[in-house]
Amino acid sequence: MQTPWEYRYAHRMKRMGSSIIRELLKLTQQPEIISFAGGLPAPEVFPVKEFQAACNTVLEQHGAQALQYSTTEGYQPLRAMIAERSVRYGINIGLDNILITSGSQQALDLVGRVFLNRGDRIVVENPTYLGAIQAWNAYGAEYITVPVDEHGMLTSELEKALRTGPKFIYVLPNFQNPSGATLSLERRKELVELADHYGVPIIEDDPYGQLRFEGDHISPVSVLDSEFRGGNGNAYSGNVIYMSTFSKLLAPGIRLAWVVAPKNVIRKLVAAKQAEDLHTSTLNQMVAYEVSRDGFLDEHIEVIRKTYHERRDVMLEAMEELFPPEVSWTHPEGGMFLFGVLPEGMDAAKVLELAIEKKVAFVPGFAFHPTGGGENTMRINFSYSSPEIIREGIMRLGTVLKEEIYKKK
Amino acid sequence: MQTPWEYRYAHRMKRMGSSIIRELLKLTQQPEIISFAGGLPAPEVFPVKEFQAACNTVLEQHGAQALQYSTTEGYQPLRAMIAERSVRYGINIGLDNILITSGSQQALDLVGRVFLNRGDRIVVENPTYLGAIQAWNAYGAEYITVPVDEHGMLTSELEKALRTGPKFIYVLPNFQNPSGATLSLERRKELVELADHYGVPIIEDDPYGQLRFEGDHISPVSVLDSEFRGGNGNAYSGNVIYMSTFSKLLAPGIRLAWVVAPKNVIRKLVAAKQAEDLHTSTLNQMVAYEVSRDGFLDEHIEVIRKTYHERRDVMLEAMEELFPPEVSWTHPEGGMFLFGVLPEGMDAAKVLELAIEKKVAFVPGFAFHPTGGGENTMRINFSYSSPEIIREGIMRLGTVLKEEIYKKK
Repeated sequence: MQTPWEYRYAHRMKRMGSSIIRELLKLTQQPEIISFAGGLPAPEVFPVKEFQAACNTVLEQHGAQALQYSTTEGYQPLRAMIAERSVRYGINIGLDNILITSGSQQALDLVGRVFLNRGDRIVVENPTYLGAIQAWNAYGAEYITVPVDEHGMLTSELEKALRTGPKFIYVLPNFQNPSGATLSLERRKELVELADHYGVPIIEDDPYGQLRFEGDHISPVSVLDSEFRGGNGNAYSGNVIYMSTFSKLLAPGIRLAWVVAPKNVIRKLVAAKQAEDLHTSTLNQMVAYEVSRDGFLDEHIEVIRKTYHERRDVMLEAMEELFPPEVSWTHPEGGMFLFGVLPEGMDAAKVLELAIEKKVAFVPGFAFHPTGGGENTMRINFSYSSPEIIREGIMRLGTVLKEEIYKKK
Repeated sequence: MQTPWEYRYAHRMKRMGSSIIRELLKLTQQPEIISFAGGLPAPEVFPVKEFQAACNTVLEQHGAQALQYSTTEGYQPLRAMIAERSVRYGINIGLDNILITSGSQQALDLVGRVFLNRGDRIVVENPTYLGAIQAWNAYGAEYITVPVDEHGMLTSELEKALRTGPKFIYVLPNFQNPSGATLSLERRKELVELADHYGVPIIEDDPYGQLRFEGDHISPVSVLDSEFRGGNGNAYSGNVIYMSTFSKLLAPGIRLAWVVAPKNVIRKLVAAKQAEDLHTSTLNQMVAYEVSRDGFLDEHIEVIRKTYHERRDVMLEAMEELFPPEVSWTHPEGGMFLFGVLPEGMDAAKVLELAIEKKVAFVPGFAFHPTGGGENTMRINFSYSSPEIIREGIMRLGTVLKEEIYKKK
């Protein structure tokens, strides 16, 4: 049906069709398919009972407040809890440095809204997080990509990118989505120094930082930047906007994330959010706070770590056994994803088609390369499926890969 | 603290400072102040117990689903319920015509995102809803205003506005925020015909349509448009995008609203929402559905109507008794607001300053006039305060108004 609306779409919509990924993912939603495609947390460990108790407590004690409008900035005790937790990671921030958002997708969107003019360049890792690209495409961003290896962004290639005059650098330092790579301490320091040299600020997107199940914690870029600026290492420098989310710590269905930024920037983000959705659900903020308090969040994060650790181990073992030697993959120390690399010239999108016939799915890596490339790569999620299902899925995928690789030869 | 971010704000932020209104409203949040300024529903009638029961049911029966990611389009049973209810109002829509949004502020924002290029004109009532202006300012919209009387938009003035080539017409037909006016049936028909004549589509924003406590229901503009297009009056024409919200029917703290639009437009809105916040809280959608089902929503709407009816009556009686005769005001048949008009030349913003000293507050009407004017008007909310408080507040306000008016003479 043709309506007058059809002739009226804004220019920005040209870059905002439903993504190829989304179309592919629809295919993977048939129930018999084992999907390593999505980025879903393990539902078995959702703290359902604790949420139930928290809903009861919040509605019983503060029902009218929980159901009423609230401030754009976010529920104060929740922000206080975030501030307190951030001190552990070596950085002092106040409530004025924190904005609660409706998931980290909104945090990315608000950053775009506040900072991006059409044509602005952003330095990103290659591959990088697809949600950020989708958010910033709406504002007409262009991307300058920096290659990545198993230690994250190749800071040796960063300088060239910084000389293009980008608006900011976007980095996912821990167990990056999609590559699973973690930016090494040395490179974090190089990143901070180079960003300072060129006067370019940094967005640090850290959804998985607390989901490390192996190796040692590495200081966030925001902390290293504060240290680099000397004197008082634990005072927030403001050069880095940090964001994280409750989606991976508690549950994504409540849409709760946060941004840490200089006060003036928070004020702008608040004005932008006010125009966008007024505020994030009062009920969800109060319930998340109630669930998390008194040490539960830390206990629960331990459970998630253990679960994902086991699942990653099962997946790596199965891949070792069942994947052809021509395929390589990353060994993430946390998070939810690993990244497979097929022989040069192979097309992972084609492999996906065959995989779906064999009832297993992943995401072809080209989707995460905003300036092209990565056709022979694949993102594989290990957080969602149970160990048994992971083994079965990797077996199926191994069969497909062997068929494709040995047919080719 | 000056950070590199300060030099990097996008051009659009120039129009997005914190509003004067917001600054004023901060003053009204002192606890001793009786505030007719906000647009808050009555918290006493929030169905807190029902929410508690619904949270328990949803988490007990579908805990993992409620806490997991879900589709951008929205929870299917909730959309089905909205489709079913819309049939009552004389229009047949399917699930594909409905998008769930994070409050109607997001619905307005998404419409802006999908349709507005910088400089696009929108025909709006004068005064109009401030949230829409805030949403669309972010996309660089310009406004063509059409005056309003007690029967809503003066359709006799509409033609002139339509000849400027606007992208769409924005109208709040029922108990408009801020004026309280309802667009008459005759004018709705004129609006539909003129919009058709000029080929301009319509956004019908209807947060309060179900909160009528006096007079007869008038068909929505979307229904009249479908009838106008003849043949099958109950098939959705697609010329009107309709939006409404659960904020005024259940509770604003859960941030739930919806948009009805042609399927192709819904697809674009979905792409835009995906980039903006992925999806609206799964938990909240499931809980709102659970609360509403089996007739509860209708019962509850009756309670709200009764409550607001009483409060409006108390306010009108008190104003009749306590306001000076130089002040006039609207008599809304539903909704949450009435609109006061002071003698020509008086400044309601100044009156507000004096009112705050006397511990009572309202919103000066100029804020709702996007192209200027309305300095002598005031928006007064009657839904939030109890009858006793309303009487006390109107007494205080009456005193201030008398002092100002008789001092002036």
